Amino acid sequence: MPRLDPASVKALTFDVFGTVVDWRASIIREGEAFAKPRGLSVDWAAFADRWRAMYQPAMEEVRSGKRGWTKLDDLHRESLGKIVAEFGIKGVMAGDLDDLNRAWHRLDPWADAVPGLTRLKRKYVLATLSNGNVALLVNMAKRAGLPWDAILGAEVTRFYKPQPGCYLGTAAMLGLKPDECALVAAHNNDLAVASGLGFKTVFVPRQEHGPGQTKDLTAERDWDVVARDFFDLADQLGC
Amino acid sequence: MPRLDPASVKALTFDVFGTVVDWRASIIREGEAFAKPRGLSVDWAAFADRWRAMYQPAMEEVRSGKRGWTKLDDLHRESLGKIVAEFGIKGVMAGDLDDLNRAWHRLDPWADAVPGLTRLKRKYVLATLSNGNVALLVNMAKRAGLPWDAILGAEVTRFYKPQPGCYLGTAAMLGLKPDECALVAAHNNDLAVASGLGFKTVFVPRQEHGPGQTKDLTAERDWDVVARDFFDLADQLGC
Repeated sequence: MPRLDPASVKALTFDVFGTVVDWRASIIREGEAFAKPRGLSVDWAAFADRWRAMYQPAMEEVRSGKRGWTKLDDLHRESLGKIVAEFGIKGVMAGDLDDLNRAWHRLDPWADAVPGLTRLKRKYVLATLSNGNVALLVNMAKRAGLPWDAILGAEVTRFYKPQPGCYLGTAAMLGLKPDECALVAAHNNDLAVASGLGFKTVFVPRQEHGPGQTKDLTAERDWDVVARDFFDLADQLGC
Repeated sequence: MPRLDPASVKALTFDVFGTVVDWRASIIREGEAFAKPRGLSVDWAAFADRWRAMYQPAMEEVRSGKRGWTKLDDLHRESLGKIVAEFGIKGVMAGDLDDLNRAWHRLDPWADAVPGLTRLKRKYVLATLSNGNVALLVNMAKRAGLPWDAILGAEVTRFYKPQPGCYLGTAAMLGLKPDECALVAAHNNDLAVASGLGFKTVFVPRQEHGPGQTKDLTAERDWDVVARDFFDLADQLGC
């Protein structure tokens, strides 16, 4: 039994990259499909890791106020231009890189995500609480069949996690108090911030970084719910 | 055949009050359910019309900059307090009025709305482009089964229609150019604004104002599509 009273929560809000979708395997798949007709030889696992490593520093420029609001698609595209140069990839047109950038709109969900969310949706409002922009999340959901009730998070609040405004603005748009919302995430640090703001917390471990992953393999605090996957979460919440 | 090329449109964006849901009959139903256990005698049709009549002036205070951003739930609640006094309704607690205010979260869809949207969703991104706030639209969708891909419009753009920012911000969040979006509405004036901003236009007549309705019974311009209802729209768009 979870420590959490399932009836005390109205909405489940979700971290998406890593928690709902396997960004790394998907970017590798997209990279290989991009490389093949172009005869490119690239270590796409290294490429995916490098692209993701530029994610926090890129958002930090926005969070710090160094630059104005910039959606994640645009941050991803800027990072992509740099990585392509770093990896010595030559002769690729800007339009082709725009398409490769939209690989982030085509990430595949973990196997339990769609059926698990479908069960959870019967009882709870399901919303994204992601740093992804709306178009990215809408296109991802449409392709993968993710049954969100609302696409919320960074772009609609104009705050990137872990800025409090991203969590609190999402709860406010749902018309809920923070403690009527749970954050579901595969990242202990995301849950720590949410918990500090009054959210309930659900940890689901995911091996998003591949075989070399060392962090976030287990719950580092006594989160309200720790679930093996979204099926186990649905079981624990009585869905 | 519609004048519109169905393949040129990526997203259908929807006016909601009147176009998707029958606000007037629903408010009358909610009012009657509210009155019965309290022994109140109220002309709920007149009450519904009065509440709706205060909608545009209330938003105009926000649009004009006279007051800061205020979500529709709060505007509805302020109007409700005034109407209750106007109608001489006495002895009702503020908390009960808060619940009556959430009648706008419980509006019923027109009979063709859910099955029609379900067909349209197979081919198009479906988003709200409504002055309703996110919680109102999410709760309405959850109760009625409206299969939105995204809840957009006023609250996420911080502009009330007919301010251009509401339409253009919604398209931008979908990652689309205005002419890749169609507005579906039962209101000629809403379509005129959207058309001027580059949106494609779909008119669906609805008798939302009841038997006394005189305007918006027919298309007043040569909109891209004129459909009898959402079934006819799905037929015309090949869904």
